[in-house]
Amino acid sequence: MEKQRTLEEVGEFGLIDILTKPFSTSETTIKGVGDDCAVLPYSESEYALVTTDLLMEGIHFDLVYSPLKHIGYKAVMVNASDVYAMNGTPKKMTVSIAVSAKFSVDALEQLYEGMRIACERIGVELIGGDTSASMTGLAISITMLGTVAKDKVVYRSGAKPTDLICVSGDLGAAYAGLQVLQREKAVFNGGKGAQPKLEGYEYPLQRILKPEARYDILEELAKHNIVPTSMIDVSDGLTSELFHICTQSKVGCKIYEERLPINVQTAEVCKEFSVEPLIPALHGGEDYELLFTVPLTQYEEVKKIKDISIIGNIAEASQEMGMISRSGDFVHLKAQGWNAAYVKK
Amino acid sequence: MEKQRTLEEVGEFGLIDILTKPFSTSETTIKGVGDDCAVLPYSESEYALVTTDLLMEGIHFDLVYSPLKHIGYKAVMVNASDVYAMNGTPKKMTVSIAVSAKFSVDALEQLYEGMRIACERIGVELIGGDTSASMTGLAISITMLGTVAKDKVVYRSGAKPTDLICVSGDLGAAYAGLQVLQREKAVFNGGKGAQPKLEGYEYPLQRILKPEARYDILEELAKHNIVPTSMIDVSDGLTSELFHICTQSKVGCKIYEERLPINVQTAEVCKEFSVEPLIPALHGGEDYELLFTVPLTQYEEVKKIKDISIIGNIAEASQEMGMISRSGDFVHLKAQGWNAAYVKK
Repeated sequence: MEKQRTLEEVGEFGLIDILTKPFSTSETTIKGVGDDCAVLPYSESEYALVTTDLLMEGIHFDLVYSPLKHIGYKAVMVNASDVYAMNGTPKKMTVSIAVSAKFSVDALEQLYEGMRIACERIGVELIGGDTSASMTGLAISITMLGTVAKDKVVYRSGAKPTDLICVSGDLGAAYAGLQVLQREKAVFNGGKGAQPKLEGYEYPLQRILKPEARYDILEELAKHNIVPTSMIDVSDGLTSELFHICTQSKVGCKIYEERLPINVQTAEVCKEFSVEPLIPALHGGEDYELLFTVPLTQYEEVKKIKDISIIGNIAEASQEMGMISRSGDFVHLKAQGWNAAYVKK
Repeated sequence: MEKQRTLEEVGEFGLIDILTKPFSTSETTIKGVGDDCAVLPYSESEYALVTTDLLMEGIHFDLVYSPLKHIGYKAVMVNASDVYAMNGTPKKMTVSIAVSAKFSVDALEQLYEGMRIACERIGVELIGGDTSASMTGLAISITMLGTVAKDKVVYRSGAKPTDLICVSGDLGAAYAGLQVLQREKAVFNGGKGAQPKLEGYEYPLQRILKPEARYDILEELAKHNIVPTSMIDVSDGLTSELFHICTQSKVGCKIYEERLPINVQTAEVCKEFSVEPLIPALHGGEDYELLFTVPLTQYEEVKKIKDISIIGNIAEASQEMGMISRSGDFVHLKAQGWNAAYVKK
């Protein structure tokens, strides 16, 4: 008998490829697996967008330090972020939950209250779902439906050499927030009435517990008549998202370490935890910022928009994904995990 | 502090009501929470349908006796069944899975192979999804999108007094199959190389492990120019589904025990387990048959269709949900759990 392949061996992207390849799609699926959303025919002028996320207790959230209201809010925002990453507008969602008997109705009301607040904020309607029992932890599955004008839809695959690489907000804060939460959980579990110390960490904590999807960035881009050539949201980390854009656009890229936006509180947390802030900025994940490319000719326009950093350029396919460090070295960026060679330098 | 309400106290339907009521929808949601699918505007002649199910290991399936390929097949069919229950056609689906490291890639390929076979059978395309880790069991979340002609959509709410109550196929077989599987699991767990005895139980086992959604029934109805006045799929048990139709249509109903379709192997299993076959027929669940109502004037037409049983009539709202037993007694039907008073008679 052949040796069975493990999940670790093939990795997440490899697994998706293996599992979904045998399925066939027709021309009625404009874009299937492989972008932030699936794209389907809708009306004469619009496409429908579909995205889904399955959030598991112990993997995506920890009930010890995440209030249920925040979990609900975040679950909605995470899905909305995928719709925004197609330059679309989220409209409807379904919510399924599986819960063990330990949850009270009141606790679940908190979860849904968080969802409701997020829905009101971004104009999304709850249209259905499923509730079931769980033998173990809480599972939350959301499917978000949206629309996008046909001439405004943005894929991961449209980046062209010389395009500017832009990112909204700042990077690595959610990772920093998570470090603080995990430390305080350990202190709390140590007992003796220890109270978690969370002052001074407000920004990173807000970023991990209650992220905001960046609809405001889409509004600004539209106001300046900018349609990105490619876009993705930063859920797995900048390097991972750059990898998706470069692979699907068949291009390379060069970013500059000194241009990576890092919030001052993020940097402080990193210092406290003896982590180089560059690491969460490149690989942290869960920031839910928008990473996108715009033609070089729109440099002056994009520069005017607040809260967008131009961090580099798209390069020819022959060029690898790289970063120019503060010291001027060229560093190869790897999508999965940190490039250990660079850390040692 | 007020006492917190438990899930047991409010029940599944109560919980859905409590959680979803605070959400508001606009006229762009034609039907939200409360039917087999949500109904959304789509084209001039069609609506879009959306349904979702979250399946949890240990609750919805048991890896000890369910082959992964069957679990995948069933997960697709269960969702398709909800689209058929609106008289619609399933078209696209997303699949999210959360898996623990114990699963090999090959095992997951089996799961997806089952899904692929089901998709090919019913003409559905996989358009996206999510894969993540799980600290515990396997979770599978499917969202199915479909369409239905505007003048053909069937809700739970359209039943009228005197309408015929019809059900496809037979009832209680999935419940019977589950009894056999659970017994054989216990035998197997007893060890000593005991082999499960499954011969003679093929039909109930197929019904629990690899159900077929009843698209063929929709085709037959269309062929005979019958558009049901209300419809629902039998996932929780006949009584529960009748309750939904009666509540939402604001009517009562009367069914006849002697008309309930029960397969001979189902009856044999029930005898073996000392269960009155009527119990799984009324409350068994997981049969994924279609329960629907048609105007009395279409009696001759509906009678011609193979594999449909006319089990009773819709009654005025003033009438309760009831069943005429073989002995001629009127028995009140209760949606949740068995009416113990009747058992004692």
